[in-house]
Amino acid sequence: MASLLQRKQYFLLLLSSFLFLLQSQTAESRTLNYKWEVKSELKSPDCFKKLTITINGRSPGPTIYAHQGDTVIVELKNSLHTENVAIHWHGIRQIGTPWSDGTEGVTQCPILPGETFRYQFVVDRPGTYLYHAHYGMQREDGLYGSIVVWVPEGQTEPFSYDHDRNLILTDWYHKSSNEHAAGLATPGSGFTWVGEPDSLLIQGRGRFNCSVLGSSSGTCNSSSTECVLYPLTVVPGKTYRLRVSSLTSLSALSFQVEGHSMTVVEADGHYVEPFQVNNLFIYSGETYSVLIKADQDPSRNYWITTNVVSRSRTTPPGLAIFNYYPNHQSKRPPTTPPAPPAWNDVPPRLAQSQAIKARQGFIHAPPKAADKVIVLLNTQNTVNGRRRWSLNNVSFNMPHTPYLIALKHNLLHTFSQEKPPTGYDFKNYDIFNPAPNPEATVSDAIFRLDFNSTVDIILQNANMMSPNNSETHPWHLHGHDFWVLGYGEGKFDIYNDPSKYNLENPIMKNTVPLHPYGWTALRFVADNPGVWAFHCHIDAHFFMGMGVVFEEGIERVGKLPTSIMGCGESKRFLRP
Amino acid sequence: MASLLQRKQYFLLLLSSFLFLLQSQTAESRTLNYKWEVKSELKSPDCFKKLTITINGRSPGPTIYAHQGDTVIVELKNSLHTENVAIHWHGIRQIGTPWSDGTEGVTQCPILPGETFRYQFVVDRPGTYLYHAHYGMQREDGLYGSIVVWVPEGQTEPFSYDHDRNLILTDWYHKSSNEHAAGLATPGSGFTWVGEPDSLLIQGRGRFNCSVLGSSSGTCNSSSTECVLYPLTVVPGKTYRLRVSSLTSLSALSFQVEGHSMTVVEADGHYVEPFQVNNLFIYSGETYSVLIKADQDPSRNYWITTNVVSRSRTTPPGLAIFNYYPNHQSKRPPTTPPAPPAWNDVPPRLAQSQAIKARQGFIHAPPKAADKVIVLLNTQNTVNGRRRWSLNNVSFNMPHTPYLIALKHNLLHTFSQEKPPTGYDFKNYDIFNPAPNPEATVSDAIFRLDFNSTVDIILQNANMMSPNNSETHPWHLHGHDFWVLGYGEGKFDIYNDPSKYNLENPIMKNTVPLHPYGWTALRFVADNPGVWAFHCHIDAHFFMGMGVVFEEGIERVGKLPTSIMGCGESKRFLRP
Repeated sequence: MASLLQRKQYFLLLLSSFLFLLQSQTAESRTLNYKWEVKSELKSPDCFKKLTITINGRSPGPTIYAHQGDTVIVELKNSLHTENVAIHWHGIRQIGTPWSDGTEGVTQCPILPGETFRYQFVVDRPGTYLYHAHYGMQREDGLYGSIVVWVPEGQTEPFSYDHDRNLILTDWYHKSSNEHAAGLATPGSGFTWVGEPDSLLIQGRGRFNCSVLGSSSGTCNSSSTECVLYPLTVVPGKTYRLRVSSLTSLSALSFQVEGHSMTVVEADGHYVEPFQVNNLFIYSGETYSVLIKADQDPSRNYWITTNVVSRSRTTPPGLAIFNYYPNHQSKRPPTTPPAPPAWNDVPPRLAQSQAIKARQGFIHAPPKAADKVIVLLNTQNTVNGRRRWSLNNVSFNMPHTPYLIALKHNLLHTFSQEKPPTGYDFKNYDIFNPAPNPEATVSDAIFRLDFNSTVDIILQNANMMSPNNSETHPWHLHGHDFWVLGYGEGKFDIYNDPSKYNLENPIMKNTVPLHPYGWTALRFVADNPGVWAFHCHIDAHFFMGMGVVFEEGIERVGKLPTSIMGCGESKRFLRP
Repeated sequence: MASLLQRKQYFLLLLSSFLFLLQSQTAESRTLNYKWEVKSELKSPDCFKKLTITINGRSPGPTIYAHQGDTVIVELKNSLHTENVAIHWHGIRQIGTPWSDGTEGVTQCPILPGETFRYQFVVDRPGTYLYHAHYGMQREDGLYGSIVVWVPEGQTEPFSYDHDRNLILTDWYHKSSNEHAAGLATPGSGFTWVGEPDSLLIQGRGRFNCSVLGSSSGTCNSSSTECVLYPLTVVPGKTYRLRVSSLTSLSALSFQVEGHSMTVVEADGHYVEPFQVNNLFIYSGETYSVLIKADQDPSRNYWITTNVVSRSRTTPPGLAIFNYYPNHQSKRPPTTPPAPPAWNDVPPRLAQSQAIKARQGFIHAPPKAADKVIVLLNTQNTVNGRRRWSLNNVSFNMPHTPYLIALKHNLLHTFSQEKPPTGYDFKNYDIFNPAPNPEATVSDAIFRLDFNSTVDIILQNANMMSPNNSETHPWHLHGHDFWVLGYGEGKFDIYNDPSKYNLENPIMKNTVPLHPYGWTALRFVADNPGVWAFHCHIDAHFFMGMGVVFEEGIERVGKLPTSIMGCGESKRFLRP
């Protein structure tokens, strides 16, 4: 006999199906209005009480559900006490609304405490997207969430499923992002202050082992209801579209559903030629849809797990419950969580990256050739005793007058007008060893692209400052999707490797991994008027300079809203 | 034979005397330029590593030394990552420069990360003053320092001393002010999250007992050089003017120098009719000068101690070393630190308050009568489940358009135009018991005073929400000094108590304690055009609503600098 909880669950399933049908009735694109309040609250997502940045009291914040073509309006009220904020709509290209990209320093001034800022944009493509803080390292404090865009009513997708579910994966630290930032900015302290995450969260929940804290565990409470493992309830026999996203601060992850294989069908809003995995590697800023059939023994529950890969694994697995209805949601699986892949085994990760191709019938052909090629060699550097990341020996520094305002209003003195280097000493640089000269230049110079030109980017990985060490860097481009032309091991060969590019069926993405000691090639068309960041999606790496900025078609950008102004040199515009 | 360290010390003594002479050469008032950078850094002021807000790498920040009549210019660069900032010049009246008072929400918009804000003001009176953050509760994170204003060259003071020294007393918490603010703003959590301080600091140094943290003491390091006890070196036989200030977040303090009596000669920039104490009670926001003669056995050092009073004492004493030259600075006194007064013994504290009178020959006579009397009854309240403080049942809420801008530029819709109540139900209210109805109104309404009118304020204390509990509240007035007309126990009697006012030789101050279950009466002339906060100087209490704001002569305020604008409704002034 079903318990009250189970009956309630079943009712919710019915209700959500009904609401879905209801939403499908309206045929035209709509305007969706959200009122969000950002606050700093004491939360215990992994049982340890920590200051968390919430939206309407929650972290992750509310999921935005929309249909292709809808207009989303978010009125964001900053109720933090002393901190500003800005939110980026990750994967949304902001065509015609470059001022709504939410990237502090690039497209807007920060939103002050007490202010309400209005973001307005069109979600022009179906798929799985994200939103998160894009100011300092606030994302790490919990300010993030999901955007799910459905195909228009009446349209179908090239795969079928019974239900649509969503999971965001993150890593979590008991120290605040401000502490991390201070640690990173301290000469000599470098990486060491950040260290490995305390927990991995699935949909904002995890479990830290409070007992390791000993006597001072007053802020860790294992029986807090906030750190009950997240249950994903499935009905036996049904097929689920599971949207899996990563917004880790640092960690590359593997993701598994014990005993179930997954068919990858979407990546970053583009349909993937389906392939099966038992383990999905996922990098910060990426989104995937996988199909999972609830076809296992329904008398028990199964583990959903995430594990750190690419960095030495000291953090316990992130856990959630794959809950077969009508088992109780909190019923622990009788098994131990499945073993993750070896953390330092690169080939399977590279293989998965290479397996992701555009789905037949949904291929957007890339331009045949590039107008401009930019090779970005990443290296670790020391600048004034402080550890940084650089591209071709230039470490990015965010200015305080947002580029979009500076460029549109001719405040060109606010940033360097030099041209950043488009390559490095290919011939002589040894990517397998620490750089012989680890000094770098800090600059806020940007790449100014010809409008509508086709740009190739080669991301080139290398050894870090310590020997035998090369990390995975997920790179995210704002304002565009790019074609992933190829991945390779070792040093990119500018003469021979381009001939191996996949121009047939390359997937389009907005975030792509650069594997250890490898290269990744991508192509995009500079056809979106605005100013766009392109950076490593590891919060700390971007903070330490691992990013660049592109300008394109600034003369085609419409009148900027004054709401994005008021900081840096745009304070000049104050005329009382 | 003197050690190298001792010789170095002696050299420094000589050098500082020489520099003092050098400074005394210039006869006219000067302009002093400071360039300060505010950062967030990991510091261990009490051996426990904590994110601390520093100025030029230090907390306390640099002491401003000036002569009466000098103009001080501080170019303050905010290098915090995501937090704004504002600095108040505590005790400086800002005559003619009300926009430099540094009170976020009252006189300026917050200073954004990356911005440099220029404070400019005249230090028009000699004495001991302070500066500190006046935004959120950032003061608690270490953003504070001293201002020492000497009499003009050639002038003498009514007491003599050989050397001038300075100590700021604070309390210190291992949790950040943001954590405290979140705790205070959480319904139901109330006070409990803040609790008592972890340490008491003297001139930014203390010693937390790391061993109580057990295994997780990784961030506590007893051998850190940052938490060596502060040494105040004295030469036997010399007399010291010791400037003692308190910028505690919460705690009322007693201050002692073991085996030495002190003669109080200055309070908040005004000469005091001298009196001797062995123990000085000092409240947050107050400054005193005491004369101490190094007349004890010079073969040893002595303890300088601070202790919590007025709240149950759980924090160990704050310690520093009164170091007799040529003993080593770190030589521990052979004695145990002197016992502090009982924490809950109010009469000696009231007696000290009453003993402070203006020095003969330096009496500023107050106006004989007031044009307006405002009685402010403070009570604890619950508003929407959240603990607050109120005055006559109105709890203050800071608006996001600074009053100075709103009033000068006619943005009167940005705050309530009601008149705050000037009294309470004197006849029926029982100050010795919890309020029967603890609900309150939250408001940003202000008092608008007639220019040049004389205003009396009666601060009336009462029982808190829990029975048998009434705290000490130090009230600080911006933009003015006030005459302290009297202190009393119990409920102020509006018919009889005014006749007991001291109109003969009342001291002028900018900060005054309100003792448990007592009242404090003060008088000021509303002759400084501007908008001025008047509030409890306990950070958390002001944050919870314990303050009011006065406007006077706004029409006489000159053109506001645009640098103070850009937030709230003043964003309207953005016209690119």
